[in-house]
Amino acid sequence: MKRLKRGRISIVTQSGSFAEMIVDELASEGIGVARIVSYGNRVDVGETDCLDFLVDDDATKVVVLYMESVDDGRRFVEVASRCTKRKPVVALKVGKREAGVHAARSHTGAISGRYEIYKAAFKKAGIIEVDGYEGLKDACKVLNSYDLVAGKKVLIVTDGGGVAVTMADACEDLGLDVTGLTEETRKRLSAKLPGYTATGNPIDLTSSVTDEDYVIALEEGLREEYDIIIVIVLWGPPEITERLVNKLKEIRDIYNKPILICSPGGKFTRRMAKHFEEKRGLPVFFTPESAARAAAVLAGGKM
Amino acid sequence: MKRLKRGRISIVTQSGSFAEMIVDELASEGIGVARIVSYGNRVDVGETDCLDFLVDDDATKVVVLYMESVDDGRRFVEVASRCTKRKPVVALKVGKREAGVHAARSHTGAISGRYEIYKAAFKKAGIIEVDGYEGLKDACKVLNSYDLVAGKKVLIVTDGGGVAVTMADACEDLGLDVTGLTEETRKRLSAKLPGYTATGNPIDLTSSVTDEDYVIALEEGLREEYDIIIVIVLWGPPEITERLVNKLKEIRDIYNKPILICSPGGKFTRRMAKHFEEKRGLPVFFTPESAARAAAVLAGGKM
Repeated sequence: MKRLKRGRISIVTQSGSFAEMIVDELASEGIGVARIVSYGNRVDVGETDCLDFLVDDDATKVVVLYMESVDDGRRFVEVASRCTKRKPVVALKVGKREAGVHAARSHTGAISGRYEIYKAAFKKAGIIEVDGYEGLKDACKVLNSYDLVAGKKVLIVTDGGGVAVTMADACEDLGLDVTGLTEETRKRLSAKLPGYTATGNPIDLTSSVTDEDYVIALEEGLREEYDIIIVIVLWGPPEITERLVNKLKEIRDIYNKPILICSPGGKFTRRMAKHFEEKRGLPVFFTPESAARAAAVLAGGKM
Repeated sequence: MKRLKRGRISIVTQSGSFAEMIVDELASEGIGVARIVSYGNRVDVGETDCLDFLVDDDATKVVVLYMESVDDGRRFVEVASRCTKRKPVVALKVGKREAGVHAARSHTGAISGRYEIYKAAFKKAGIIEVDGYEGLKDACKVLNSYDLVAGKKVLIVTDGGGVAVTMADACEDLGLDVTGLTEETRKRLSAKLPGYTATGNPIDLTSSVTDEDYVIALEEGLREEYDIIIVIVLWGPPEITERLVNKLKEIRDIYNKPILICSPGGKFTRRMAKHFEEKRGLPVFFTPESAARAAAVLAGGKM
């Protein structure tokens, strides 16, 4: 296993193998961890004790929970509510349905209880719930780079049409807001970009895209109030270059808005992702759905 | 881009960039393709013409469709119904909600129509619908190795508890059946495996697992009527070895049941995945959710 870096995320889990698995993934993705606790069968400490410690822990900027059950629901909600006022808390609750509930019972002896009750408790405590392991990974990745945002408006800029339609669907499925640009902005975009550019939201720069087109699209789009930017980069178009990585980082830093990169593809794509992530701190997601899940986490469950 | 292999899957897509993206991914995963058609704005041929050709195309064992809209719904259902009698047809329909519908319109001029109508048409034609790009990829991977199965009963065997609970949830979310083993089988398992083994479904061999424990669990489990087997392999436990790859292949071949491997983790895991996939033809999924999506495709929408 690759050595784990120090980072801002603390992970509290009821499953040892889950701890091992997520740590292995985060290490190989270069995502750092502050603390990790696997409290398993909760013999002496449980989820709420851990959370209570992490509220005031300066090393911990984000808390991620994997739960099969809760020991004392009232105390959990009280402590979690204090924690979420200070830092984001993300939770994956498993053992939702019949087979999962049984599996949790034979795993940690957990009485999972009705899932709907957890859902309500998370909401009350301001905890951001994710739906599965993929959601948890996406949350770790995005919260490794960015803080939560105030709203849920997403601007999508793309060089491929189909993937952008898929992305718009995925965002809306999660309750994100993919409202179009104003007529004024669209006119400005049309004046500066080729006539076949789609100036809605997604802004589709098409496969004739250049690095500079991304800059124009983002500068014009960011005149409006968006909370999260998803930039889709397919590396097929001949006129985009590696310099795009720096340009996107500059825009992110000037406008101070979280930019998530979505870049599905093969080996070249994975290599370019390293430039985005390791050199520029821009998180890359390899499917439209994972970028949308990450955006939903940043929007902090305001959906 | 890695050179694409010849294979059994044909892809028909309304988006050129989507075609490029999926082909790039499949090439880098070593999955072969029989035909690929990007019909874009449907100037002379459309989805139904392509499908009509593929019905009798011997090179094509599986058809995968990416659709924003349909040209002639009635003819599409008629041709697709003929096709699904001969080979699996998987479809991703995008442009489902407001932003996606708008994006599709500016992309290919497609009038997406109400999504619910597509859903009903797919069902009528026997098309297996997937929910997004991830589902489409999982479908390609699993149908590269396996044919559809008759039912939807899934047996899960694991060496990690948390991941198995997550898997059981993911399977049930998709309507798969994770029914437990009979008392008789559980007794036989208890007699042959350590006392702390969980003999439900999932069968949890825990981190004291050996290669041989997987064999025992599968041989006993397969005395009962399961359609799909998901084997979770976390590589942390000290007593499992690379020989497990061969043992699982043997079981798959003897019992003639599809075995999907779920192996989340980092670099070592990815290396072992190559042994499973390239040398033994056992598809590996890196998250519980993706293995569950693949299983749901194999069950062919019987949910």
